[in-house]
Amino acid sequence: MSTAGSGDEGPVIGLDIGATKVSAGVVDARGQVGERSGSLLRGRTTPEAVRAASFEAIDRVLEVPGTPRAIGIGVAAQVDSTLGTVWYAPNLGWKEVRLAPSFRERYGCPVTVANDARSAALGEWKFGAGAGATDLLSITVGTGVGGGVILGGRLLAGAIGASGEIGHTVLVSGGRRCHCPARGCLEAYVGGWAIADRAQEAVRKDPSAGRRIVELAGGVDPIDARVVGVAAAEGDRLAGRIVRTTSNYLAHGVAGLVNAFNPARVVLGGGVIEGWPHLVRAAAGCVAETCQPPAARAVRVSQAALGRDSVLVGAATLARTALGESSVGAPDEPRPRVRRGSDRAVPG
Amino acid sequence: MSTAGSGDEGPVIGLDIGATKVSAGVVDARGQVGERSGSLLRGRTTPEAVRAASFEAIDRVLEVPGTPRAIGIGVAAQVDSTLGTVWYAPNLGWKEVRLAPSFRERYGCPVTVANDARSAALGEWKFGAGAGATDLLSITVGTGVGGGVILGGRLLAGAIGASGEIGHTVLVSGGRRCHCPARGCLEAYVGGWAIADRAQEAVRKDPSAGRRIVELAGGVDPIDARVVGVAAAEGDRLAGRIVRTTSNYLAHGVAGLVNAFNPARVVLGGGVIEGWPHLVRAAAGCVAETCQPPAARAVRVSQAALGRDSVLVGAATLARTALGESSVGAPDEPRPRVRRGSDRAVPG
Repeated sequence: MSTAGSGDEGPVIGLDIGATKVSAGVVDARGQVGERSGSLLRGRTTPEAVRAASFEAIDRVLEVPGTPRAIGIGVAAQVDSTLGTVWYAPNLGWKEVRLAPSFRERYGCPVTVANDARSAALGEWKFGAGAGATDLLSITVGTGVGGGVILGGRLLAGAIGASGEIGHTVLVSGGRRCHCPARGCLEAYVGGWAIADRAQEAVRKDPSAGRRIVELAGGVDPIDARVVGVAAAEGDRLAGRIVRTTSNYLAHGVAGLVNAFNPARVVLGGGVIEGWPHLVRAAAGCVAETCQPPAARAVRVSQAALGRDSVLVGAATLARTALGESSVGAPDEPRPRVRRGSDRAVPG
Repeated sequence: MSTAGSGDEGPVIGLDIGATKVSAGVVDARGQVGERSGSLLRGRTTPEAVRAASFEAIDRVLEVPGTPRAIGIGVAAQVDSTLGTVWYAPNLGWKEVRLAPSFRERYGCPVTVANDARSAALGEWKFGAGAGATDLLSITVGTGVGGGVILGGRLLAGAIGASGEIGHTVLVSGGRRCHCPARGCLEAYVGGWAIADRAQEAVRKDPSAGRRIVELAGGVDPIDARVVGVAAAEGDRLAGRIVRTTSNYLAHGVAGLVNAFNPARVVLGGGVIEGWPHLVRAAAGCVAETCQPPAARAVRVSQAALGRDSVLVGAATLARTALGESSVGAPDEPRPRVRRGSDRAVPG
């Protein structure tokens, strides 16, 4: 057992590792975020660079350096939560990165690692728009599309803790190439990167219709979902069409998932939803109209409540599970191996 | 408590109500089917006609009339298992039919009602190709497409017991009309009725290429999946193309579902799979090639083992759960209300 660090009264830290930024925060047992800190990665996404940025962000939120009670990491990646290993993180360029050990060594406390959308699902379930639901489908539409599913009051895990990877269900068989090995995935149509790709293609195909979008972006290559949203809000027709198509794709994808999982609650969050919140209403309408009627009657679709904090909060909540703080337990979640670091804090 | 009927030693009956036939069987605790009996419906699918055919089939398998210990019904329908009510059964033409009460009255024993593909999933999990799996996705491709999912050793239920309705996930957004309110569902491409529709369209579009299929079927309207299979086996090019396209659609649909649920085992069954078993190998190949690599490595795809008995066996297994015979329990399944009928057997 460690004598330094890992104090029973120390804070629980949530860490959100995204493709462009890491954010750390102190999260209390009611899911409230206290001190917080973020670091932009500025394209430096090697495991070493991300670790350094993460340590910096965590150290900044710790009142007494080196003494968190637990750290929960949510990362934009496929994760084996039992090992704390990232299998594959296309947006970070990682393959098989053991993430947990260096954090354990440095901070001498239990460390959990989970997929970010799965962490967000746990956050929304415990403290956000999914609170009180026994059967919840949480969908995060950001750069990529991910999710997490709670059924029968349990966060579904599956064989390797990847249940709820709904971004890679088929939406258009044989359709657009995805960043994963498949074609036609939901993510390949409504993920932020895919919206950018679709918009750039549309502009290249019809430059005169795309003039305003190019102006706002300062070129074709920098066109992203945000710029499309701005142009659509100005009344630009091409941008408006891209937003409507995206909305339509997402709505039909969500309706199919409601049939498959039969949740009582669907919560939609992530950057794309925050930018275009009317996509939530469109999805709700499509669920009501096209789902199997009994499943449609049983479900409510709403927007996520925790915003950018959902990953932080969910990751910290998962870390509390590892501590055995059962009030936030998720029994089907693979139990992380809880190990203590050495007495000396050693940079990972 | 009842004195007549519902003897503790009586047999447990499984009943499979399909669109064309009802089948009853005595199922023992090891999932073995003893006495069995079937009745063709010959187009008479009103609730009254189906009840009469079911009673006839059940009575025939009962050694001592009127004394089953429990009856489990699997029906091609959306079901509220807690009430024993069929919400909607498009292939039977039913809407909101209370199925359990008349069986309870007649046989004086507990009666459970579940979706047929969900029953098949339970059968395959307990006694078939999914035996021993903690995380199983069972897919039935018959006239329609259904399924059932076991994760963490529990049959997923969802808000109304409809989790696993994977036939109505989107495969081609905005695609072919389904029998459900949506478009482009997996079922609308690979269900038996959809294969028949696609084949008839192809033949109408190119009558010379479709000559052999029409010959075998005796016309365009009678073309079904079976005839397409026969023609393909003879080397007919159009039929071969329809089989290949179907295989491709199913494979991509399955791969997306493996990403979403992260099972360790996928079991494919139902009439279409029995007719075209090579679709299982195609699906396994597509999962290996296009799924997220860690999920792909964790899963094995195989053919169902119980054949036409899977619904019977699963339905009877579910009925045993209602009796509290916990060795076959599925904790997340909505608990059916167990009621005893009157002492006198009254036809429903």
